[in-house]
Amino acid sequence: MERRLAAPELDIDRWLNTPEPLSLARLRGKVVVIHAFQMLCPGCVSHAIPQAIRLHELARNLDLAVLGLHTVFEHHEAMTAIALEAFLHEYRVTFPVAIDRPSADGPIPRTMATYAMRGTPTTIVIDRDGFLVRHAFGQEDDLMLGLLLGTVLSQPRQGDAAPGTRDATT
Amino acid sequence: MERRLAAPELDIDRWLNTPEPLSLARLRGKVVVIHAFQMLCPGCVSHAIPQAIRLHELARNLDLAVLGLHTVFEHHEAMTAIALEAFLHEYRVTFPVAIDRPSADGPIPRTMATYAMRGTPTTIVIDRDGFLVRHAFGQEDDLMLGLLLGTVLSQPRQGDAAPGTRDATT
Amino acid sequence: MERRLAAPELDIDRWLNTPEPLSLARLRGKVVVIHAFQMLCPGCVSHAIPQAIRLHELARNLDLAVLGLHTVFEHHEAMTAIALEAFLHEYRVTFPVAIDRPSADGPIPRTMATYAMRGTPTTIVIDRDGFLVRHAFGQEDDLMLGLLLGTVLSQPRQGDAAPGTRDATT
Amino acid sequence: MERRLAAPELDIDRWLNTPEPLSLARLRGKVVVIHAFQMLCPGCVSHAIPQAIRLHELARNLDLAVLGLHTVFEHHEAMTAIALEAFLHEYRVTFPVAIDRPSADGPIPRTMATYAMRGTPTTIVIDRDGFLVRHAFGQEDDLMLGLLLGTVLSQPRQGDAAPGTRDATT
Repeated sequence: MERRLAAPELDIDRWLNTPEPLSLARLRGKVVVIHAFQMLCPGCVSHAIPQAIRLHELARNLDLAVLGLHTVFEHHEAMTAIALEAFLHEYRVTFPVAIDRPSADGPIPRTMATYAMRGTPTTIVIDRDGFLVRHAFGQEDDLMLGLLLGTVLSQPRQGDAAPGTRDATT
Repeated sequence: MERRLAAPELDIDRWLNTPEPLSLARLRGKVVVIHAFQMLCPGCVSHAIPQAIRLHELARNLDLAVLGLHTVFEHHEAMTAIALEAFLHEYRVTFPVAIDRPSADGPIPRTMATYAMRGTPTTIVIDRDGFLVRHAFGQEDDLMLGLLLGTVLSQPRQGDAAPGTRDATT
Repeated sequence: MERRLAAPELDIDRWLNTPEPLSLARLRGKVVVIHAFQMLCPGCVSHAIPQAIRLHELARNLDLAVLGLHTVFEHHEAMTAIALEAFLHEYRVTFPVAIDRPSADGPIPRTMATYAMRGTPTTIVIDRDGFLVRHAFGQEDDLMLGLLLGTVLSQPRQGDAAPGTRDATT
Repeated sequence: MERRLAAPELDIDRWLNTPEPLSLARLRGKVVVIHAFQMLCPGCVSHAIPQAIRLHELARNLDLAVLGLHTVFEHHEAMTAIALEAFLHEYRVTFPVAIDRPSADGPIPRTMATYAMRGTPTTIVIDRDGFLVRHAFGQEDDLMLGLLLGTVLSQPRQGDAAPGTRDATT
């Protein structure tokens, strides 16, 4: 029988576009989509960010949380918090955006390392119980992503993901 | 309590891209997406047909049938069956396409009239029990359509739509 | 010294969108752009036709003639004159369109054969003196085509292209 | 008789992507296209920068200089020189880019003020003699820009633009 790991908690330096910090634990019960990006990543700017903006608009009537995660792993001096704020303003990003916590050991920030992301953009989908249902590097097709989210949204909450695994049902 | 009409059966002159004729009755148990189009409708060619092609590719692993419906209501001499066959070949449309049956009374073909379509493109989604869950004129957003289909695909079959209505559950 | 052949005259079955037939001889003194297309060619519909429409709008203030040439070499029963008329109406093509004259010997129409076109779309540019300055198969980049046309439009008429060749000046 | 002002000289803080500083005076004899942009301006990133990149590729065989001009008039802390360098690297911009000199008096940098630019993107075209032939705010159509440049490139150099005006010839 398959068993899956629960999605690891986010390790965040600072939150933007939200009155108070969020966490996966606090969002348990909702489906969560995380768009990991860098503000100077062309594929993020041309495809993933616009997709996340549209998804956030559609999510108003759904039990769905859309989060941005700024995972800076290159050009750290260019992609500062103040630069990110200007970027979010200019691109009209209104969903909550988390700044991944820098690592003391190297250029890869902590949440990015924990999730073993290969780069940006990366899309992560987490179900109501806190389990990972998608972790994909690169551009996501809108139809495919919508189909997946419609399916995951239709699954009722079954209980807490703790202690880290469960029998796979998909 | 809301009650909804079952999707009316298609009235078809001829089927292409399928070894034998289809019908909604035969597809009962599957989710059905109907893309009503005209081969000389620019909005169909630039958006709806490519969307249907991608959906058909995604549908291979799903309990989902994608059908085209050629609802010619203008330029009848131009959009003949032989012209449609060339169109399907050139645009690499491989899903089943039904040619709507012409009416003896006027330019609007029969299925188009039964469904009271406003023009092309029109997208129709039918659930596993044969009930209409979407009937929309114009371009459909990929994310929105995917979300809807993921949701409808997650609903188990409940029983036959006959005798034409049921208590609404959505 | 280089010498170039003059652009061969068009051999046309029927003209649309023009009160009277045109010819390269009648257009001598203008720069001429010919967009050879088929109405069921996806690359023509998505790129070349929209480019020709925009060029025709820009040409209003220029000494430039934009012509369509319907070079049907496949699906002849589908791409009839009546189908083409519906196509031009739906896609809002208002520049003159010539229907290439069918050949008695095979599927390739006469002007297409004379110009040795490799398929559709093909773009042909002819200078004020009737000489070919471009003959290209496939999609043309807008910037490149604009640069070429701006250059050719800046060249004054030098004299008739007859008897078929001249010393190359470009 | 119309008379036109010569294009004012650029007032630049720093040059990138060039071994030594440029100036309009040094480029006299070439046609010059200046793309004024901000790295966090969505219309610049999606349209104007890609257009400038393609134009720069086409310019290799032409007597044409393509320059970027980073005219930061908002979010100054975000769009620093170090951020711009990262942006140029990620978006693969290889043409020379000038950083407009900040003003002591307000947020508008000096060259932007001298040219009375309305915002970004702004496209400026200067002929071989140093006269302005286009100064436009917003997205430029590729075909139109190409036609203009082809025309301007066809005009031979007539002499120095100094002392600032000449009889208009276009």
